[in-house]
Amino acid sequence: MTSFLTENQDRFLSELLEWLRIPSVSADPKFHGDVLKAAEYLKMRLEEVGLDNVELCPTAGNPIVYGEKLIDPALPTVLVYGHYDVQPADPYELWTSGPFDPVIKDGKIYARGACDDKGQVYMHVKAFEVLNQNGGLPCNVKVMIEGEEEVGSNNLGIFVNANREKLRADVVLLSDTGIIANDTPSIEVGLRGLSYHEVEVTGPNRDLHSGLYGGAVHNPINALCKMIASLHDENGHITIPGFYDNVDVLTPEERTELNKAPYSEEEYKQSIGLPATYGEQGYTTIERTSIRPTLDVNGIWGGYTGEGAKTVIASKAYAKISMRLVPHQTSEEISQLFQQHFTSIAPEGVTVVVKPHHGGEPVVTPTDSVAYKAAAQALEDTFGKKPIPTRGGGSIPIVAMFKSELGVDSVLLGFGLDSDAIHSPNEHYGVFNFMKGIETIPLFYQHYAKLMQQPA
Amino acid sequence: MTSFLTENQDRFLSELLEWLRIPSVSADPKFHGDVLKAAEYLKMRLEEVGLDNVELCPTAGNPIVYGEKLIDPALPTVLVYGHYDVQPADPYELWTSGPFDPVIKDGKIYARGACDDKGQVYMHVKAFEVLNQNGGLPCNVKVMIEGEEEVGSNNLGIFVNANREKLRADVVLLSDTGIIANDTPSIEVGLRGLSYHEVEVTGPNRDLHSGLYGGAVHNPINALCKMIASLHDENGHITIPGFYDNVDVLTPEERTELNKAPYSEEEYKQSIGLPATYGEQGYTTIERTSIRPTLDVNGIWGGYTGEGAKTVIASKAYAKISMRLVPHQTSEEISQLFQQHFTSIAPEGVTVVVKPHHGGEPVVTPTDSVAYKAAAQALEDTFGKKPIPTRGGGSIPIVAMFKSELGVDSVLLGFGLDSDAIHSPNEHYGVFNFMKGIETIPLFYQHYAKLMQQPA
Repeated sequence: MTSFLTENQDRFLSELLEWLRIPSVSADPKFHGDVLKAAEYLKMRLEEVGLDNVELCPTAGNPIVYGEKLIDPALPTVLVYGHYDVQPADPYELWTSGPFDPVIKDGKIYARGACDDKGQVYMHVKAFEVLNQNGGLPCNVKVMIEGEEEVGSNNLGIFVNANREKLRADVVLLSDTGIIANDTPSIEVGLRGLSYHEVEVTGPNRDLHSGLYGGAVHNPINALCKMIASLHDENGHITIPGFYDNVDVLTPEERTELNKAPYSEEEYKQSIGLPATYGEQGYTTIERTSIRPTLDVNGIWGGYTGEGAKTVIASKAYAKISMRLVPHQTSEEISQLFQQHFTSIAPEGVTVVVKPHHGGEPVVTPTDSVAYKAAAQALEDTFGKKPIPTRGGGSIPIVAMFKSELGVDSVLLGFGLDSDAIHSPNEHYGVFNFMKGIETIPLFYQHYAKLMQQPA
Repeated sequence: MTSFLTENQDRFLSELLEWLRIPSVSADPKFHGDVLKAAEYLKMRLEEVGLDNVELCPTAGNPIVYGEKLIDPALPTVLVYGHYDVQPADPYELWTSGPFDPVIKDGKIYARGACDDKGQVYMHVKAFEVLNQNGGLPCNVKVMIEGEEEVGSNNLGIFVNANREKLRADVVLLSDTGIIANDTPSIEVGLRGLSYHEVEVTGPNRDLHSGLYGGAVHNPINALCKMIASLHDENGHITIPGFYDNVDVLTPEERTELNKAPYSEEEYKQSIGLPATYGEQGYTTIERTSIRPTLDVNGIWGGYTGEGAKTVIASKAYAKISMRLVPHQTSEEISQLFQQHFTSIAPEGVTVVVKPHHGGEPVVTPTDSVAYKAAAQALEDTFGKKPIPTRGGGSIPIVAMFKSELGVDSVLLGFGLDSDAIHSPNEHYGVFNFMKGIETIPLFYQHYAKLMQQPA
């Protein structure tokens, strides 16, 4: 199998690069045409590797690319999920090469979406080609790649709910996560949920001259800053009443286990250029980014932000504020608590509107399932090491949705690295990781099919 | 005189509108050509009303328009100051008519610069025309109109210093201020100074995914908000150590006098659409906007501010922060205190850079000077009421500079209203106020010349 991989590596890469050149940014309407192009490109590649009934399923938003290969109803079925849309690329000026002009440097593919998630999705496409060369698929597969993951997957749930029969499967397989290091395979078994809001603080009915009015009216920017500052106490705890009520508390044993994952605080700080980490007192960096909920301002704006100086008191100030959730917080509950609290702390003289963007539920996936065992075995085959189960900080809301809508668990067989700078300028994905994925995924299918046929 | 005014009002207005159509925004380089056009237009109009040696004096920045009429060295000399540059017009979408497409509605001229300061400068231009019709100038005049007031008058001081002889005068006359109401004339005798800074807070060396890193690094936007929030205490006092050390404290009598100015808290709140005023405890709104220093955030930005949601932790966050100063604070002293303090409160994990923009000194002008008496008499002639001396909240840094460089006091004979929305969308200037200025300014010259010739 590996010789086939080495022989075809260049072609696999050039196919991926061609896809990465299409700026499928779902958050910005001006890229809508490119989003559709990216979907069409994927459809063409899925047909090429032999999937049947490949189609663009319309939704209220961007289409979902679906395809399947049903070889035998008696065999188990794997539903592959991923997304072909990408994050906005700005700030463009911080990219060393164009975000949609992919280049391969020092064994890495540089482009928006190189890792998240086009690069990882394309491993699955090529995995089918590998299987075709090695006895074919050992089970049924259904492939569902959406185009709105980066804007909250608003239409996926509706689509899944309306197509329960079509999508029926024994497990969901997705690669939108990472491994600890290229010599340390791991599988994410926990993911944080998300509650994302845009807040608007309004003061005077128009921008005012800060000389004439300064000191007499509540400046909405100062007010917003005060409100945001009050959301954390001096220990880094979030001050929203009831915020921690349902937080899943790990046993000391679980925490010890979690902190066994190889990690160097020094390397971590170096990789992001910081003299110190920071966060909730009483927890390690690993815990702060996995088992603890967080609150971050993702964007803020108001007043004069152009060149030079303008002495103005703005009428309005805005911020985008999101919270990462852990089991058993729900995004609905937390969104309500945030909305109530943030509105209640508005000082006299300003009014506040909280607009919820999108949410997602935290999940913990089982480590004793057949799918987990198959994934672990496949990784051990290709890395020569047993993978470590980890708890991820990111959110893949649809994992919880698949559980509730389809009643199936997911296995997170991702090959990215924290250092891949996803959502950042100069996002990249290792050629090593891309090829490892194409090598490992076919083995997952083979182990999974075999294990499923053994009497439990 | 008044018949001449009514007969020519339409022409005066159409000349002003023509000038207002030129977007002379000094803060934004892309308007540089228009700034020069506006200067040329003014030169043409000054020549038209008979000034001599009208020229565009080059500076390191925008040219200063200068002209003079020296009728007799034995007579006193008035130096008229104003500015032909205007504030940026954004946010454009909040204007009901184009900022540079002036219209007259309900007796008001709507345009950026209609009041601040093109409209008020043009009253002076037309005042010369009025005097030409009424026995000519009773004293010498020098006119100096700059093009960088809205960006800190950085080159004016250099020009004045280099042209002390050319600019020698007995008093500076300027109209960049206002009156209490159209039936309540007033003269500003105090102005606040300014200390303006741009701050940059840097956290990680790149934008980070808020899921992977959220909770483990200090988010520079959260940090900036905390720092800004800490600049005021719960009583609205500014917390910068030493900030109030040199603040001029008024006597109870002075404060009573100051608060005699006609003022309605209800009307004030209504005019800006606020349920409540806000500010430093223990002071009235009139005091908060005149005799007390203030601190306001004029702009803030960082992270993702586009459409939709991006789950990012920004590498940098920025704010423009300015302080209004009162006698005897100096902008240099306060800028140093701010810089020291703001840098010192940066939490671990972020670094802070404070870039000073521009400053200006607070001033109090005498009410017993000949010029003040002449201005008061002229206003009484045209309004039928004695003007009230007031302390203004705004800053005209050059008033202090004229005192130090030329050794002369200024008289602030302005005709604007607080409700003119200068620096805001829909800036406007009353036709009544424009014409009142053209009527009053010639009387100032006549009273001033007469009073100066009386033995003291």
